[in-house]
Amino acid sequence: MSGQSDQERTISELGEFGLIEHLTREVKLNNSSSIRGIGDDAAVLDYSGRRVLVSGDVLLEGIHFNLMYTPLKHLGYKAVVVNISDILAMNGDPSQVIVSLGISGKFGLSQLEALYEGIRLACDTYHIDFVGGDTTSSVTGLTLSVTAIGSVEPNQVVYRDGADVNEIICTTGDLGGAYMGLQLLEREKEVFKSNPGVQPDLSGYDHILERQLKPEARYDIIRFLSKLEIKPTSMIDISDGLSSDMLHICHQSELGCKIFQDKLPIHEQTEKMGQELDIDPTTAALNGGDDYELLFTIPTSQYEKIEQEKEIIPIGHMTSKDFGCYMVSSSDHQIALKAQGWKNR
Amino acid sequence: MSGQSDQERTISELGEFGLIEHLTREVKLNNSSSIRGIGDDAAVLDYSGRRVLVSGDVLLEGIHFNLMYTPLKHLGYKAVVVNISDILAMNGDPSQVIVSLGISGKFGLSQLEALYEGIRLACDTYHIDFVGGDTTSSVTGLTLSVTAIGSVEPNQVVYRDGADVNEIICTTGDLGGAYMGLQLLEREKEVFKSNPGVQPDLSGYDHILERQLKPEARYDIIRFLSKLEIKPTSMIDISDGLSSDMLHICHQSELGCKIFQDKLPIHEQTEKMGQELDIDPTTAALNGGDDYELLFTIPTSQYEKIEQEKEIIPIGHMTSKDFGCYMVSSSDHQIALKAQGWKNR
Repeated sequence: MSGQSDQERTISELGEFGLIEHLTREVKLNNSSSIRGIGDDAAVLDYSGRRVLVSGDVLLEGIHFNLMYTPLKHLGYKAVVVNISDILAMNGDPSQVIVSLGISGKFGLSQLEALYEGIRLACDTYHIDFVGGDTTSSVTGLTLSVTAIGSVEPNQVVYRDGADVNEIICTTGDLGGAYMGLQLLEREKEVFKSNPGVQPDLSGYDHILERQLKPEARYDIIRFLSKLEIKPTSMIDISDGLSSDMLHICHQSELGCKIFQDKLPIHEQTEKMGQELDIDPTTAALNGGDDYELLFTIPTSQYEKIEQEKEIIPIGHMTSKDFGCYMVSSSDHQIALKAQGWKNR
Repeated sequence: MSGQSDQERTISELGEFGLIEHLTREVKLNNSSSIRGIGDDAAVLDYSGRRVLVSGDVLLEGIHFNLMYTPLKHLGYKAVVVNISDILAMNGDPSQVIVSLGISGKFGLSQLEALYEGIRLACDTYHIDFVGGDTTSSVTGLTLSVTAIGSVEPNQVVYRDGADVNEIICTTGDLGGAYMGLQLLEREKEVFKSNPGVQPDLSGYDHILERQLKPEARYDIIRFLSKLEIKPTSMIDISDGLSSDMLHICHQSELGCKIFQDKLPIHEQTEKMGQELDIDPTTAALNGGDDYELLFTIPTSQYEKIEQEKEIIPIGHMTSKDFGCYMVSSSDHQIALKAQGWKNR
């Protein structure tokens, strides 16, 4: 086999152990908490005196992504980012990931390399170490299982259950874009299916496409809040949609909430695509999910500190449980928030 | 929905959040290192002063299990056990698991309950806390993704790369049984397919069936070694088969090895089934995998301490790298060990 270039080698020639060595050969450990990474039964980590945060997620072909329009490099990137987002939502510093893959026979080495390139890029971007994982064959679709690990000072953990009445509800960035980007990709897929000669028309929609294909985790927000010495009273990342994730905070904090439609941050491309496809952008923001923005509550006394920060948007306030969980629409109607997560995935 | 019994409720009636709450309602945290479990973005753990061990594995329908002969309770149990085994193989104490499921539409609530019952039973048996996870729908088969977390004193971690020349290679329990149990189940599946009226004939093979369907992790061995103050110089759990896993230790320790066919611990049922199916029991031990026994090396000076322990079996010794990795057969031939893991799964 010597003399062959990597491109010429096949997965079966490499074998399981050769494959993992090949794919992870450029992986280096940078965080001081990463004692030992890939290549043993478990990763060995050191977090003396800090709380350890561990979160796991599975991404399944046909449910969480469609390979017809998801570049594998983007998929690898996104799989890491969505898990980092969970650690950030606890107010933690993400530091390691473990990625296990189930791959079907249709995958070649170059495709796996693209997937790993995306994983490595996300690790580099967020200063995360890639410390373990496994690659097995799959008779069904591609399966990505990611575990993210991080840490936090014991008194800095933020749960979902710490919100209090009258506290301000904030979200970050913009909402509904990832869902609208997905609808655009689905439309172009159908066009392509009925006429494979037509190139997809995606111009002018770079923002919502990036929201869907290459989302980022809001580490910048966590650092900003830390710098201002603001510790949110409750926090969650918006993966299922604002509505479902707001309900998680309400449910666990045993409170109600009142958010305002007019306050929801919606990007102009989300608005425009909504008009084109006849989808209400507010519905996309409430139920679309996949935005990976942060949703958190802070006491009113902290409001001044964040008032000037454009990426943090106050959208309402917490109420007593009896009030219920509502959005006040532009036309001043109260609309009950509903959990939609299950149906969308 | 009030007044309905659990049995009458469907997954869609419960919804995603209701489903997880329902399935995990009996989950309690027992380990002092488990600060917060299921119900937030990440589990929060505390391991002051100890190394943290994290390991992840994915079990896929059609590759790692066949639902035609795998009871879901057993599957849940096994999924946890194989991950605990990875933590033990680092000489660690397993303490938490995170389990994420991808389930297809063919699953009903009672089946998911059986799966979770198995997960909980394994957690109870090994004093592990179930601290997180996710349940999403799958368009393909059932996917189980398990992350096991544990800890160990910094000076007690055992890697794969610490073996030295002349050290004794030990394994535990017996080998090849899980593979032979699988062959028996496969045979009975074929019989059943061609004649559904025939009941499977599994009598007299309880040991090898249990090895396949309900393996145990060797926590007892880790405790025994600790009590005797023996710290193995290298260790791995036998998941891919003795051959592949021995090669991992050799490769990472930059050594060779010599193991003896006559020393391999093979159960009488494995021998008997081997005769019936015309499969060499040694081949099953070397390449079958799924045994979850421990494979480790100790200095000769420690041999006396374990000599009387029936569950620990010396099978050979480490050699210089130049010697290579061999098994000496009963007829005194030297047979090179080969990695087979990829092909078997």
